[in-house]
Amino acid sequence: MRHILIIGAGRSSSSLIRYLLEKSTSENLFITVADLSEKAIEKYNSQHSNIKGVVLDISNKKHRQQLISESDIVISMLPAFLHISIAKDCVKLNKNLVTASYISKEMRALDKEVRQKGLVFMNEIGLDPGIDHMSAMQIIDRIRDKGGKMLLFESFCGGLIAPESDTNLWNYKFTWNPRNVILAGQGGAAEFVQEGRYKYIPYHRLFRRTEFITIEGYGKFEVYANRNSLQYQSVYGLDEILTLYRGTIRRVGFSKAWNMFVQLGMTDDTYTIPNSEDLTYREFVNLFLAYSVTDSVELKLRYALKIDQDDLMWEKLEELDLFNKNKKIGIKNATPAKALQKILEDKWTLEPEDKDMIVMYHKFGFELDGKKQQIDSHMTLIGEDLEHTAMAKTVGLPVAIAALKILNKEIVKPGVQLPISKEVYEPILKELQENGIVFYEKEVPYLGYNPDNAYNPG
Amino acid sequence: MRHILIIGAGRSSSSLIRYLLEKSTSENLFITVADLSEKAIEKYNSQHSNIKGVVLDISNKKHRQQLISESDIVISMLPAFLHISIAKDCVKLNKNLVTASYISKEMRALDKEVRQKGLVFMNEIGLDPGIDHMSAMQIIDRIRDKGGKMLLFESFCGGLIAPESDTNLWNYKFTWNPRNVILAGQGGAAEFVQEGRYKYIPYHRLFRRTEFITIEGYGKFEVYANRNSLQYQSVYGLDEILTLYRGTIRRVGFSKAWNMFVQLGMTDDTYTIPNSEDLTYREFVNLFLAYSVTDSVELKLRYALKIDQDDLMWEKLEELDLFNKNKKIGIKNATPAKALQKILEDKWTLEPEDKDMIVMYHKFGFELDGKKQQIDSHMTLIGEDLEHTAMAKTVGLPVAIAALKILNKEIVKPGVQLPISKEVYEPILKELQENGIVFYEKEVPYLGYNPDNAYNPG
Repeated sequence: MRHILIIGAGRSSSSLIRYLLEKSTSENLFITVADLSEKAIEKYNSQHSNIKGVVLDISNKKHRQQLISESDIVISMLPAFLHISIAKDCVKLNKNLVTASYISKEMRALDKEVRQKGLVFMNEIGLDPGIDHMSAMQIIDRIRDKGGKMLLFESFCGGLIAPESDTNLWNYKFTWNPRNVILAGQGGAAEFVQEGRYKYIPYHRLFRRTEFITIEGYGKFEVYANRNSLQYQSVYGLDEILTLYRGTIRRVGFSKAWNMFVQLGMTDDTYTIPNSEDLTYREFVNLFLAYSVTDSVELKLRYALKIDQDDLMWEKLEELDLFNKNKKIGIKNATPAKALQKILEDKWTLEPEDKDMIVMYHKFGFELDGKKQQIDSHMTLIGEDLEHTAMAKTVGLPVAIAALKILNKEIVKPGVQLPISKEVYEPILKELQENGIVFYEKEVPYLGYNPDNAYNPG
Repeated sequence: MRHILIIGAGRSSSSLIRYLLEKSTSENLFITVADLSEKAIEKYNSQHSNIKGVVLDISNKKHRQQLISESDIVISMLPAFLHISIAKDCVKLNKNLVTASYISKEMRALDKEVRQKGLVFMNEIGLDPGIDHMSAMQIIDRIRDKGGKMLLFESFCGGLIAPESDTNLWNYKFTWNPRNVILAGQGGAAEFVQEGRYKYIPYHRLFRRTEFITIEGYGKFEVYANRNSLQYQSVYGLDEILTLYRGTIRRVGFSKAWNMFVQLGMTDDTYTIPNSEDLTYREFVNLFLAYSVTDSVELKLRYALKIDQDDLMWEKLEELDLFNKNKKIGIKNATPAKALQKILEDKWTLEPEDKDMIVMYHKFGFELDGKKQQIDSHMTLIGEDLEHTAMAKTVGLPVAIAALKILNKEIVKPGVQLPISKEVYEPILKELQENGIVFYEKEVPYLGYNPDNAYNPG
């Protein structure tokens, strides 16, 4: 038996564990699932003879190292900032490691030692980061192998609600960590390059500078810019590219409506509201509006945001019960962001029968044989249910596949790495495809932003 | 002879030094002006037998302590973060200290030792903070002494251009540190209380939620909220007050126009622009606008900010030469804020004959003898010239007066303090008045925001 230790049994681990368990007999695997919560792991103790659950407090060094030393490979599905102690143990105890998180500075610093020991520390191998890297590099490498020169790369991803479960005016429900949705885009201006020109969008304009994409069978979506589109420019070998833009996908109209919260200041997470626990939803809204003894909160908000009486934006706010005089925030020392999250969770939490959807879309512009060309590539996935969501599958399956391939010595290149080399992404993308995670490509006319190198008055 | 050491000979020290020098014979004073810059102090060596200039690098501990030990009182006019080493020397060497800066945590921590040694460390005794504290507390104390109950306190201050020098469409020039003007309002939402209700304004809305004030002889001004109006609530003894609001005064229309820069993202100081040195003003503007191969920067900006073709906002932008294709930012690794400052300094720098103006305005609402009443109080001051500006006088004179009164043992209460007690503010305000810094009071009908305690639908 080969032992796989999975640390963290949260929502993103369900499909990962199922995949490995299904292979456990043929591949001779024994899986240990460790989590701080008894509830999260107890089901694994009666499920199958090739799996067990263990309660683990990862601050308990002795227990943590004992579990790691008993395993042949470690998968950490904990929040990113908790990986490092596990990573250091893996170095010490000579174990390979897989995570779906961005490579932190501390993780990067282990690279030399990891390589010296011949270990594989595969990171950023979930959905985004993960499938985005692999599916993009596959096409970029193919274009370059043919002698093409990359001109444009745009990459978008979104965790959305499936069309059959899309029942509110926002066309949105929380299919993942709500807090990340509330704080999305904060912390600095969004930066990207278009036709060689740097572009910046401040947070308070981010949700008003969207682009549209259309996916056959699913209709139109919109995209707002991610904070740092240039992060992978060098890693992808795109230092000379003219256009580089990454974004987040939402259903059309979401961003314009979300911008209402941004404009009011409700997404701010930097200060706490006095007496927030007892504040009604209506009083919360009123914090962000001018004082008036005569005017209603409703009219003040309409006026502040210039919402016409027949504007659908208004219905979106009302659907959230934002002006309720009785419902209370009920959270002590809440920031505006936390209070807003509470209000949205009332309405945007998934129902038992709801399904989620993942959408990923890439555009590759390039010059080949003297001709400007473009390939668009997209993937959509609808979740099975609330356990095996599209998010859990797209995050967990690449992690599981990579772990097994490392265990089977199909992926052997040592070091702290992300999945951008052919040896890694080709077999993993192939197996993802067999699991229903499929990219569709089509050649389209090169659009770019200045296809004819026209005079630019800018 | 009593020795006064003034550290820092910048713009804010001119009137301070002149005041003390004029008193130097009658008061037996010898003044030493220390500054890092030879140029800043050389004039004092030939000016008068009661003054000399010294070049001082304050990181030179030995020289610094030598100068302090030779003095009877120390005035620090350095930037706030540089006070602390001087303050510690003063404790060690038993010297009194005066600064015009906010009391920092480190300064506050010296309080016990300062009191034990019977020393006076008077801070926040410039204009704002300074004259605002004194002029407000004088009226608040008077109201309370009569048995009145404070209901409302609003306090506004602005450093502006004098009407006779007001020659541009913005009705504004840099009369003080330009960088502070560019960054004003950043770092978190503005917070205040109106009629017992907390109110928050995010930075990107700050310049669109202004109030108006009118000052006889000077016309209408506008006010935008300061970041933390509640900072002095307890210090002023106003814990029970219903309305507390502090703001910055500008000429009407400035904030709406300034908001264009905020909206575009040009005031951001958190990232640097690649190749900023060679960027033209026009290219700088284009960083914040959508890419287009056909549309001009002008039209894109009009569209982004919804500026009609006959809107004066447009003239304000054109006056700054913002769309110039030849003028370059000329600063390496500039943030947007630094680049914007450069553009504005071209146009908003004071001309040799220009004069500045200080405006301060307080509103005091209170209940006395069962009646709601209000007193408004204001001060305006026009500068003499570019050396003795209104800013230099209003910052420097209270510092000078306080220093002399401490030296003469008229102010004796020991401790790290700000000028909010009667013993301090009464004589200083009186002498400021003799120097032309005069507050005018008038009784006005109580306005408040809810004078009749009406039902509030909010």
